[in-house]
Amino acid sequence: MITFEKDYDIKLDEECKKEISNAFGYLIHEKEKGISGYYNLPYDSLNLLEEVENFMENEDGVYLSAKHIVVIGIGGSSLGTKAIDSMLKHKYKDLKEMIFLENPDPVSLSISLSKIKKENSIFVVISKSGGTIETMSIFKLVIEYFNFDFSTIDSKRVIAISDEGSPLCKFADENSIKAFTIPKNVGGRFSVLSAVGVVPLTLAGYNTKDILKGAQEFLDSFFANKEEHLGLKAYFLTKNYKKYPINVLFSYGDFLEDFTKWFIQLWAESLGKIDKEGKNVGLTPVAHIGSVDQHSFLQLIMQGPRDKTVTFIKIEDFENSLKIPNISLKYIEKTNFANGYSFNELINAECDATKESLVAKNIPVDMITFDKLDEKNIGRVILYFELLTSFAGALLSIDTYDQPGVEFGKKILVKKFKER
Amino acid sequence: MITFEKDYDIKLDEECKKEISNAFGYLIHEKEKGISGYYNLPYDSLNLLEEVENFMENEDGVYLSAKHIVVIGIGGSSLGTKAIDSMLKHKYKDLKEMIFLENPDPVSLSISLSKIKKENSIFVVISKSGGTIETMSIFKLVIEYFNFDFSTIDSKRVIAISDEGSPLCKFADENSIKAFTIPKNVGGRFSVLSAVGVVPLTLAGYNTKDILKGAQEFLDSFFANKEEHLGLKAYFLTKNYKKYPINVLFSYGDFLEDFTKWFIQLWAESLGKIDKEGKNVGLTPVAHIGSVDQHSFLQLIMQGPRDKTVTFIKIEDFENSLKIPNISLKYIEKTNFANGYSFNELINAECDATKESLVAKNIPVDMITFDKLDEKNIGRVILYFELLTSFAGALLSIDTYDQPGVEFGKKILVKKFKER
Repeated sequence: MITFEKDYDIKLDEECKKEISNAFGYLIHEKEKGISGYYNLPYDSLNLLEEVENFMENEDGVYLSAKHIVVIGIGGSSLGTKAIDSMLKHKYKDLKEMIFLENPDPVSLSISLSKIKKENSIFVVISKSGGTIETMSIFKLVIEYFNFDFSTIDSKRVIAISDEGSPLCKFADENSIKAFTIPKNVGGRFSVLSAVGVVPLTLAGYNTKDILKGAQEFLDSFFANKEEHLGLKAYFLTKNYKKYPINVLFSYGDFLEDFTKWFIQLWAESLGKIDKEGKNVGLTPVAHIGSVDQHSFLQLIMQGPRDKTVTFIKIEDFENSLKIPNISLKYIEKTNFANGYSFNELINAECDATKESLVAKNIPVDMITFDKLDEKNIGRVILYFELLTSFAGALLSIDTYDQPGVEFGKKILVKKFKER
Repeated sequence: MITFEKDYDIKLDEECKKEISNAFGYLIHEKEKGISGYYNLPYDSLNLLEEVENFMENEDGVYLSAKHIVVIGIGGSSLGTKAIDSMLKHKYKDLKEMIFLENPDPVSLSISLSKIKKENSIFVVISKSGGTIETMSIFKLVIEYFNFDFSTIDSKRVIAISDEGSPLCKFADENSIKAFTIPKNVGGRFSVLSAVGVVPLTLAGYNTKDILKGAQEFLDSFFANKEEHLGLKAYFLTKNYKKYPINVLFSYGDFLEDFTKWFIQLWAESLGKIDKEGKNVGLTPVAHIGSVDQHSFLQLIMQGPRDKTVTFIKIEDFENSLKIPNISLKYIEKTNFANGYSFNELINAECDATKESLVAKNIPVDMITFDKLDEKNIGRVILYFELLTSFAGALLSIDTYDQPGVEFGKKILVKKFKER
């Protein structure tokens, strides 16, 4: 289970209630008209599981001998999968290790490549457009580095995930490479529960079915109007986006760092837009990890400009009993107050103490608490943030699902190479 | 070498020039009066090197058999060291691997502990105050987990780094543990070139002397008034902190991520303050990695509110020749424009293209270019950001070196435990 609490008041007159209700109606409209397809993924993606299992059971043995699932993708094609892998991998014993080839950074690419053997790897190439320059350049590198020959069993070691009819899908067809498609109306940053995430995560050994189930639950609950806190939060954040332009996600637990990166893309790329009146609108997401960043960013929140809201993520039960030993070190007795407690208790007490100190300063704070970190809760929280983003986008009257601002840079890039 | 360029104009009247000159004078005053001691570290810390070498050459053999340098510390006690380790480790062959025990997260602690053997590790416990609750709790855990007995050779496996006369230093003295001290007037976030960074990095095998040399060079050049760009940038950022409250550090290269975390602490904790008039001032640092985050955060910079300045960090020469193969994949020919170029060229062309697209939108941009990533450049860039922070603090008329805003949360934490 996940619980949602907030520590600020929202005063709602009839006008506001109407605005929230309209935005909620607009999300129903988006879902029904297929304006974005992510609303359907928690149910539709169940169909993928069988298809993935067929691939796994193929008699060629490629999957059985695989130790690594190598994901070649960037941005929306990797962040969500990486987030889930980071959150769950410590809970599984017999996973195939996931390796992500994302950034065209030659140093990290070289290090990653040195860990991979073609014979015990499945390579999952993911690009929604089918022509992402970073991903395709790295794919070419992999082809050359490992001497791929697609007329051999090598074609079974690769899976392509892309839009139907994209250049990558056509290439896959031509080379007997298994391809999964992404629904056209599902954008990269909303695609983690499509083939983009479900296929590689299932291959690695994760229980993706439960992730989808958790997502279904939250989706249904939201559209049954049982998650009113979500619309209220979206309303508060968007109505105050000039007063509080920065939204800090303060997550307590190292394994949440990649999840916060997924959130940053979702929030930044969806809401940073030119609205219908030509105004630059948006909210700036910032992510921090507790308690480490209490020693880094907290001072600024406490005493700097009052331009931030803070959302805490707390895991009630880390399912780990590591304790602070009952040892008294001479001269350092002042730290004994935590002796005998678990680290789980310490990190969560830090989360609570930090929250309280922000509340005392009237900084708008809310808290998302997982009872534990499991597949269902991950499915729920993914839908929570996706729906929150859509709700905020509807209230801002923007197109939540496009990203026209990044096209210009891509054109300059091509020009730079052509002029060389 | 490092070069600094900016793509925005600063109009300076006599009044502004005077303000900049006064701030520069104030930094000289801070240095001479010892208001902060970090100005002296590039020279003073040379003395540490001999002391560390004595420890390494000790006949007990503990250092010789060590494979791991385990750093127990959080915030200013770990971020800088981790940053340097992340930037340089791919360039060395015979390093002792550094392991950081920072966060009181039981899951990551358990994973890290499972990699460590007492017999081949040196444990460096770092806490400026000597009583940091996270660090001391983890230190106790390490003592219990590895059955430390300080009446044996175990005392030689531990190094303490703390303020002179602190509880940790007293504990070290009592237990024949080697201790290094941090100058009292050097705060955690400015301490990377003190024993805090120099001792563990030297133990790991890094050429810390060259880091200090690079730092000396930049320090001397700055105080010889040869780095005027720095004061101009600090002036632009602080005078416009309401217009541009967010400063994005966009670094191209995965190994720069930990460096950006060091920068975030430095900038956020130093400048997020209540000024002399009781106003909440400060600038919010945000860090992103290119080209990955072009697929995540760039849309918001381009089309969202115009509240951001962007500093790019680019490494001219990654010293890695990995190339995009000259392969044409049927149907994906559109990506061939980068064929035959190195990944080094691709990632830097992305950096340049992104910069150009921001400049075209009149977003204030500057670029820090390393000719290559080496010890001297790292020393230089550390001093650059430290001096920039001091300069900005002087212009904002705040105390750059304290952090009163985080004390309240610490008190609540203790109370929470005592009330249990």
